[in-house]
Amino acid sequence: MLDANESPFPIPSKIKGLIIDEVSSLSFNRYPDPLAKKLRKTIASKSNIPEECILLGNGSDELISYIISAFGKPGGKVLFPIPTFAMYRIISISQGQKPIEVPLTEEFDINIKVFKGRLKDKGVNIVFISYPNNPTGKCFSRDHILTILKDSGSIVVIDEAYFDFSNKTFLGYLKKFKNLIVLRTLSKIGMSGLRVGIAFSDKEIISTLEKVRLPYNINSFSQAAAKIFLENFHLLRKQINTTIKERAFLISEMGKIKDIFPYPSDANFILFKAQLDNTKIYKKLINEDIAVRYFTGDSLLKNFLRVTIGTPDENRKFLKALKKITIK
Amino acid sequence: MLDANESPFPIPSKIKGLIIDEVSSLSFNRYPDPLAKKLRKTIASKSNIPEECILLGNGSDELISYIISAFGKPGGKVLFPIPTFAMYRIISISQGQKPIEVPLTEEFDINIKVFKGRLKDKGVNIVFISYPNNPTGKCFSRDHILTILKDSGSIVVIDEAYFDFSNKTFLGYLKKFKNLIVLRTLSKIGMSGLRVGIAFSDKEIISTLEKVRLPYNINSFSQAAAKIFLENFHLLRKQINTTIKERAFLISEMGKIKDIFPYPSDANFILFKAQLDNTKIYKKLINEDIAVRYFTGDSLLKNFLRVTIGTPDENRKFLKALKKITIK
Repeated sequence: MLDANESPFPIPSKIKGLIIDEVSSLSFNRYPDPLAKKLRKTIASKSNIPEECILLGNGSDELISYIISAFGKPGGKVLFPIPTFAMYRIISISQGQKPIEVPLTEEFDINIKVFKGRLKDKGVNIVFISYPNNPTGKCFSRDHILTILKDSGSIVVIDEAYFDFSNKTFLGYLKKFKNLIVLRTLSKIGMSGLRVGIAFSDKEIISTLEKVRLPYNINSFSQAAAKIFLENFHLLRKQINTTIKERAFLISEMGKIKDIFPYPSDANFILFKAQLDNTKIYKKLINEDIAVRYFTGDSLLKNFLRVTIGTPDENRKFLKALKKITIK
Repeated sequence: MLDANESPFPIPSKIKGLIIDEVSSLSFNRYPDPLAKKLRKTIASKSNIPEECILLGNGSDELISYIISAFGKPGGKVLFPIPTFAMYRIISISQGQKPIEVPLTEEFDINIKVFKGRLKDKGVNIVFISYPNNPTGKCFSRDHILTILKDSGSIVVIDEAYFDFSNKTFLGYLKKFKNLIVLRTLSKIGMSGLRVGIAFSDKEIISTLEKVRLPYNINSFSQAAAKIFLENFHLLRKQINTTIKERAFLISEMGKIKDIFPYPSDANFILFKAQLDNTKIYKKLINEDIAVRYFTGDSLLKNFLRVTIGTPDENRKFLKALKKITIK
């Protein structure tokens, strides 16, 4: 399971114990708190962002959907660099918006000249930027993003799903740029199963999003469990640090394998290029019971694959399998 | 808490115990099954409807949103009788569709003559019918609904949120009417906190809805807990029967109170009319720590209130308070 950018570690047993205690005390026959006040208060205190600037989604997917629904106009366009997280395109289309995709440079940075041009296109209301970018792994140039934030009349969404592995954020710019939305999620650090995404933005934007939010979008269990998870975040630090250390180790070891070219990463996954056909590598890894992502259709990602950083054991097993495949 | 149409009973302790055991074994660091296969299989076997005709939502609210998103067209209209469940209107507007509202007759049935006329309006793609209707409480005339299903090129959604208290359903018409969607929920029978809504329809409609569904919309906890809940549904029968018995008792007792006029109900709530200003009754009940719903703005519901059927104790406390208010 190295294909979904999940945490490979079970949540710490202390957190699980606290969650189970909490489940026992929940009144499932009652509707969840529609405002998720306790959870939003915890997030506010951890992030130092006021509660009225925080909106929760049933995963970031739902937040992306709310943003497009609230700020998309009939015949509108949604702008983002590609390759990137697939849901920006999928949700734009399902909401009747036209995706405008600007290919990255060969160094996998935003092609700022082209991007600035498209930003002025009629109907562009929303920009999505994955930071660090999935699947390429690195954070884009900060200056490019600042240029986009400054030049744009659009809503600019910085999706920081992998923040805990990059430690780079635009949260500090919320006051300066009233068109900025920063997304975070618990899905990459141990809570994929919960579906809790967080949007931080100016309170005017949050109240516009509130109008399209379904009142009970975060269930009682997720509200309670996410609160416990965040209150005990210090217990996760070790897991996150292990992933960051393993990332350096994996990139270094993969770089030593013939015909395998790993890219630097600010996330919990590594993009790599193979000399061989990537579907062949994928199939051979699957035969070893190792699932990774491979890419087709995007010329920039021809023969690329993406591996999620696993447990130390999983990573060594992956390296061994990859060596075997490329030697043959 | 007699204002939200929840079950007043905690879920049976056996079910809660099984859910807690299951939570202990869940891998929260992994994404939920995007197809919720196990839960959908359980629903298929309980309902005798094939799995490919079943779609799950994060509450019925999300299903309503998916239906409008999938079948609404630019400048489209959504038709429903009023008064009814508020989310048909709210979600239609937030998705850019125009709500077309046809007032009920004085007997709180669909005004079929007017409704049939509006069904032919240009742009009407979707019809919502709450069955039984919230807040009026009774099921509409079956013949009227069959007429709407037959005459309509539209998607007709029969929202059977209160089915367990009415025992009346259109599920048996799924094969005959390919434009029919039946909605069910676990929110009225003890699982409001979970947020699990179920759509049954023709597999063509389900696959159209699948295109707008977010892949991980039902979290791991809800998938597991809802499955256990449905597998042990026999344990809930006693709670549901108590509510049905209490409904008859409450209607009869409320009818004996001067200037209070309860309406018949197929649901877990009772609509009633007061001679007094309903906001005054609401406030006096709140002073007794009893929350009910009151209605303003809809001329058909002038001076009406709605009370959710509570536990036997809560119902007697409510009756006592209501008597005291009306005698003064």
